[in-house]
Amino acid sequence: MFLPSSICDLDLKVSLMDEVKTIFEPKSVALIGSSRIREKVGMASPQLFGNVTYNMKRFYKKKAYVVDVEGYAGYKSLKRLPETPDLAVVMLPPDQSIIQAERCAEKGIKTLVMITGGYKDNQRASLLRLKETYGVRFLGPNTIMGVVNTANGLNTTFEIDLMPEKGSISVISQSGGVGACLLDWACFYNIGISKFAFVGDKIDINDVDLLSYFGKDRQTKVICLYMEGVKNGRKFIQEARKIVKKKPILVLKGGVTQESAHRAKSHTASIAGSDQVFNAAFKKAGIIRVENVEELMDMSIALSKQPPMLGDNVAIVSNVGGPAILAADAVERFGLKLANLSEKTKKEIESLYPGVDATNPIDMIADAKAERYRKVLDMVLADKNVDGVILINMLKSTFFEPKDAKSFPKIVSKYPRKPVVDVPAGGEDFAKVYEVLGRSRIPLYNLPEKAAKALKVLRAYGMIKQKI
Amino acid sequence: MFLPSSICDLDLKVSLMDEVKTIFEPKSVALIGSSRIREKVGMASPQLFGNVTYNMKRFYKKKAYVVDVEGYAGYKSLKRLPETPDLAVVMLPPDQSIIQAERCAEKGIKTLVMITGGYKDNQRASLLRLKETYGVRFLGPNTIMGVVNTANGLNTTFEIDLMPEKGSISVISQSGGVGACLLDWACFYNIGISKFAFVGDKIDINDVDLLSYFGKDRQTKVICLYMEGVKNGRKFIQEARKIVKKKPILVLKGGVTQESAHRAKSHTASIAGSDQVFNAAFKKAGIIRVENVEELMDMSIALSKQPPMLGDNVAIVSNVGGPAILAADAVERFGLKLANLSEKTKKEIESLYPGVDATNPIDMIADAKAERYRKVLDMVLADKNVDGVILINMLKSTFFEPKDAKSFPKIVSKYPRKPVVDVPAGGEDFAKVYEVLGRSRIPLYNLPEKAAKALKVLRAYGMIKQKI
Repeated sequence: MFLPSSICDLDLKVSLMDEVKTIFEPKSVALIGSSRIREKVGMASPQLFGNVTYNMKRFYKKKAYVVDVEGYAGYKSLKRLPETPDLAVVMLPPDQSIIQAERCAEKGIKTLVMITGGYKDNQRASLLRLKETYGVRFLGPNTIMGVVNTANGLNTTFEIDLMPEKGSISVISQSGGVGACLLDWACFYNIGISKFAFVGDKIDINDVDLLSYFGKDRQTKVICLYMEGVKNGRKFIQEARKIVKKKPILVLKGGVTQESAHRAKSHTASIAGSDQVFNAAFKKAGIIRVENVEELMDMSIALSKQPPMLGDNVAIVSNVGGPAILAADAVERFGLKLANLSEKTKKEIESLYPGVDATNPIDMIADAKAERYRKVLDMVLADKNVDGVILINMLKSTFFEPKDAKSFPKIVSKYPRKPVVDVPAGGEDFAKVYEVLGRSRIPLYNLPEKAAKALKVLRAYGMIKQKI
Repeated sequence: MFLPSSICDLDLKVSLMDEVKTIFEPKSVALIGSSRIREKVGMASPQLFGNVTYNMKRFYKKKAYVVDVEGYAGYKSLKRLPETPDLAVVMLPPDQSIIQAERCAEKGIKTLVMITGGYKDNQRASLLRLKETYGVRFLGPNTIMGVVNTANGLNTTFEIDLMPEKGSISVISQSGGVGACLLDWACFYNIGISKFAFVGDKIDINDVDLLSYFGKDRQTKVICLYMEGVKNGRKFIQEARKIVKKKPILVLKGGVTQESAHRAKSHTASIAGSDQVFNAAFKKAGIIRVENVEELMDMSIALSKQPPMLGDNVAIVSNVGGPAILAADAVERFGLKLANLSEKTKKEIESLYPGVDATNPIDMIADAKAERYRKVLDMVLADKNVDGVILINMLKSTFFEPKDAKSFPKIVSKYPRKPVVDVPAGGEDFAKVYEVLGRSRIPLYNLPEKAAKALKVLRAYGMIKQKI
């Protein structure tokens, strides 16, 4: 496969897993900022420093030392710390950050997260010289929000109290804005996150290093990427191919068109290749591509909660007609098939529930409650012609109540090789069923089309695991 | 254009506008149900009757007479009503509904909304005989949720307290489930609604009659349709072409694929034509097609609040880089163009805000507050190379606060021929800015891609108005 130089830099250096691990799992942290210096563009300010300090104190379970450069008395200076932390987080304007980075290096801190942006080429070069001289490693600069690890509470974001729930999805974002949007989305919708990394200008530690770490990280089950360009394209593909055997990788790619690619270049100094080249690379790497932030989160949830789908055949089990038809439309639009239920299954359902037509999509009629859902779902999942199921259970216009959904997880867990997704279609209906099933293993979607897309992605991952 | 018989039944009867008007704007209503009869499949039950009674009492501003058939004492029977209502809403099992419909006809009630479903062919024929004998007109049967009019509080849905906010979007749904989902969505997300009509089996009053009424209804600015099939295809197209000169029509079509079309047939007795035929018909009619319930609502909001877009050129004004790149990608993916800002505009922006690169998409950097947004938006809208604008204002990772958005509507209203949509991308960020701008004329979207889609639809409507 042809790969342009922008994504096939043959820098096959071994990634230093220890340093990357330290970014997320340090023994202790030095947070270096200033309660005086203000420099807006690069996001250095007393307020932001105060916010990160607050978040670290509030969430971080290990020791964090706050080092206030040219700041108020009472804060500890780097020299006087009782121990040498293994991670420093630096949020000062570029020149001061470089000075502090050198002091860290001298003190023996080997791993640094550089929060602030606005670095010029010569300033980036100064950081790289520190790497050569002292062997220190950098995430950033221009990471803006830095890193989050829900397991130990590490949180270098400057948004007060922004901490996602613990979970198994890890995110790598090349953009502060898109990363912040993903983090906001995850927090607002209670999506279970393991780790967040904002890579920024990635002068040193890059996507491949982070991928490699997340590939080995036992808390990470699904890896999400937002990227505008990639260095070390061939290594990136190699690493991804290794990882996707064990866990799925999803990507949202920005800078798809020529004009936005131009903008991406000035945004994160990425050289974006042509979109077709990226598509081919993602395909070769076994990476699943999505179209927006919502889809990235929705599909991650599916992959983190349900098994890959091992065939194309989808059964739809619903208490409303129209939404079931929309689900069937979407199933076929996304290249899946409506399962042909076996005659045995159909007869069983129809004899048990006269009036129900058990042709897929199955409309169980508006009076279907827990018992009918449970029995029909069980029969449908047992059918060898079915590879996955979309459940639809609206409340409005039906007799279904949120508590009727309580019995779903037990049936679903009987069939660990067949994914099931649930659609309490609508606004309030979704919110109410979410209260019951939100923390279960069944992914919930507010529209049938999103559920069909989730099964499509579970099928795609099934095929990737078979092929790679 | 070839139209199969399913959508070109040449029944060119003149629609009886008075009767259709009475469905939404009756002088008084008889609500006929039973506090004893229970018949689950067709949705007749004492509880549902009680719920509709509650909603009518709670919301309806005119006189509603509750007629309890075989029910408790104290309720008025149809015969003893002090006046003859012009609308009856009947929610009994089919045979009893037919009896009550005849009593209504005898009493001189000319318009009936038939809520319950489960009618057999001969029962539908009985209703049609009443039409021949007495000249009564029917909406339904099988409308399930009936009708809603936010202006006078008419609400025959059986979901307690489900009443959308007043607004200018009217909805026609062929499916109870999809209609209920739309209603739930509208209520949950505070979308301004004028009227809802659930057409059910449409043995008499049909989509064309309702379209025609909504076309003339001064409170309706945007018409939304969910349909699985259509009778009187040619008349439907004729009527739509007339209406779209004045107001846009959006359609969500269910039963797109062969298998789901089969299901649609048994669901609402519709004969679905091939999807290409529908696409051609919608195009000829000037109807804009969307892909799901969320898009139907999102696009209606855009059309109800902003003018059509008169050219292809979109400017993006943002305080974050990555989301602006995603917006630019989506603009081009949807067939629009990134506007080439004039040199004058660029120079003005860049001289006023050193550090800002005014190449579209414009990244105003994370410290942009109300004043910078206001000035840049004004300059960009004044640029003759710009036909519409996507604003992006995230809170997370920036200095923007919800109150900074307060100044947007004033600038936007200076340019009544150029649509502007706003993207406080994310979860909480969207919710917070929604509190400030939710009721303004600026549509809000939680992702850049949805905003780009909105401008695409505003452009599509601009072209429809130019062509038809």
